[in-house]
Amino acid sequence: MYVIGERINGMFRDVRKAIRKQDKAIIQDLARRQMEAGAWALDLNVGPASAEEVKVLLWLVETVREVTSAPLAIDNPKWKVQSEVVPKVPGEKIINSCKADEDALDQFVPLAVENEAYLVGLTIDQAGVPAAAEKRVELGATIAAKAMEKGLPTDRLFIDPIILPVNVSPATPGSVLAAMQQLTILADPPPHLLLGLSNVSQGCNERELINRTYLVMAMAAGMDSAIMDPLDTALMNTAITTEMLQQKAIYCDSFLDAYRMRAKAAT
Amino acid sequence: MYVIGERINGMFRDVRKAIRKQDKAIIQDLARRQMEAGAWALDLNVGPASAEEVKVLLWLVETVREVTSAPLAIDNPKWKVQSEVVPKVPGEKIINSCKADEDALDQFVPLAVENEAYLVGLTIDQAGVPAAAEKRVELGATIAAKAMEKGLPTDRLFIDPIILPVNVSPATPGSVLAAMQQLTILADPPPHLLLGLSNVSQGCNERELINRTYLVMAMAAGMDSAIMDPLDTALMNTAITTEMLQQKAIYCDSFLDAYRMRAKAAT
Repeated sequence: MYVIGERINGMFRDVRKAIRKQDKAIIQDLARRQMEAGAWALDLNVGPASAEEVKVLLWLVETVREVTSAPLAIDNPKWKVQSEVVPKVPGEKIINSCKADEDALDQFVPLAVENEAYLVGLTIDQAGVPAAAEKRVELGATIAAKAMEKGLPTDRLFIDPIILPVNVSPATPGSVLAAMQQLTILADPPPHLLLGLSNVSQGCNERELINRTYLVMAMAAGMDSAIMDPLDTALMNTAITTEMLQQKAIYCDSFLDAYRMRAKAAT
Repeated sequence: MYVIGERINGMFRDVRKAIRKQDKAIIQDLARRQMEAGAWALDLNVGPASAEEVKVLLWLVETVREVTSAPLAIDNPKWKVQSEVVPKVPGEKIINSCKADEDALDQFVPLAVENEAYLVGLTIDQAGVPAAAEKRVELGATIAAKAMEKGLPTDRLFIDPIILPVNVSPATPGSVLAAMQQLTILADPPPHLLLGLSNVSQGCNERELINRTYLVMAMAAGMDSAIMDPLDTALMNTAITTEMLQQKAIYCDSFLDAYRMRAKAAT
């Protein structure tokens, strides 16, 4: 499971404060703790902390790079921001994200190719987030086709079929699972399947319980990556146990620790 | 999710002691607590507590019937025991269980029909528990065919594709999931799909974590019933949350309590 740590995001109060005060220690502590908890990559999102998105993203990249060489996901929907930031990110990087829109893909896919970056494609078009699984698959196919056309290997592509909060959109969890089952056979090599997991429980009670339950359902449907909170120990343990039961790792009495050691060694 | 409470089983020390001392209070307390925790039915198993299986099962039935009218699963593999106990169980009952063996089915299916009982059929034959999903499906089909031939409606049938401990049989969790996905389309109406859930973690560390993670995977593959521990609150909450995410219940802020109230009202 390719866990992309979600915590360096200006929507969280501690990060917002750190960005405004240019306090590297708080950001670096979050980076370290997420990696130690088993993350394989880190998401960086300015959120509501600042309007100077390029400047702040570059500061976040510089700050985090001082403590880890892990892949960094530059989380911003704007082409202008991505095209200024991505070429300046040392090491592995993920462009997060691009909609399934021909014009947008014509800009974002070459940016990924030129910078040897991974790309997250969202199954959203001009009409917004689709209700039907079939439309999610169709938009996933649009993204994969453009990647192949422009020379981005499909295993460097993450398709995000967009989960919505279950309290406002009760049919979306099922629609996303059905779409993922089909998206796993979309291309060879298959694209990675990713969700912004915490969104499933936005505004709900029992958020952590809902997150970790849906994580298992999504992994069973083929999801191999998520932007999620690695500091939620019960969530991480659930991801590790699912992989063990899927025979992606063998059971041993210390299987939880063994996963974290492997993640740490790899990054 | 049709939860069959596993706790009244002579393999547990408190139950073994209660059986030996003919202490009704302990058994009745376990029955009440499992029902309050959200069980829909109760399994009764003498286990190693006594060799007088018929006598003890009839005592357990009488004891439990004093406090609940919930369906009772008579858990014993022997035809002789089942044929003596089942006709004497007042109210709803489940015969648990019969192997996928023509001779055994020719005895057990008519017993279920005559006593208006449900029947659990195991995907085991003379050769033992199959490794391959395909063989599990084939044996499930044998059971369903015999039920149809002898007049047991397939929705009164539970097929148990047999989970083994993941530490000794790492491929079995995946094989069982693949079998369940096919067994859901075996007959119309479909048979129920059941597991003795706790067996997946027998002898493992992190038993509760493994049980509740595999529960979600199995429910995502079509399992609609399990013999499990309703007193494991985290496990029950996981089952309830999975059903909510599958849209079998709508999200409300008190969705966990709402499920338990529904289970209580139904039994």
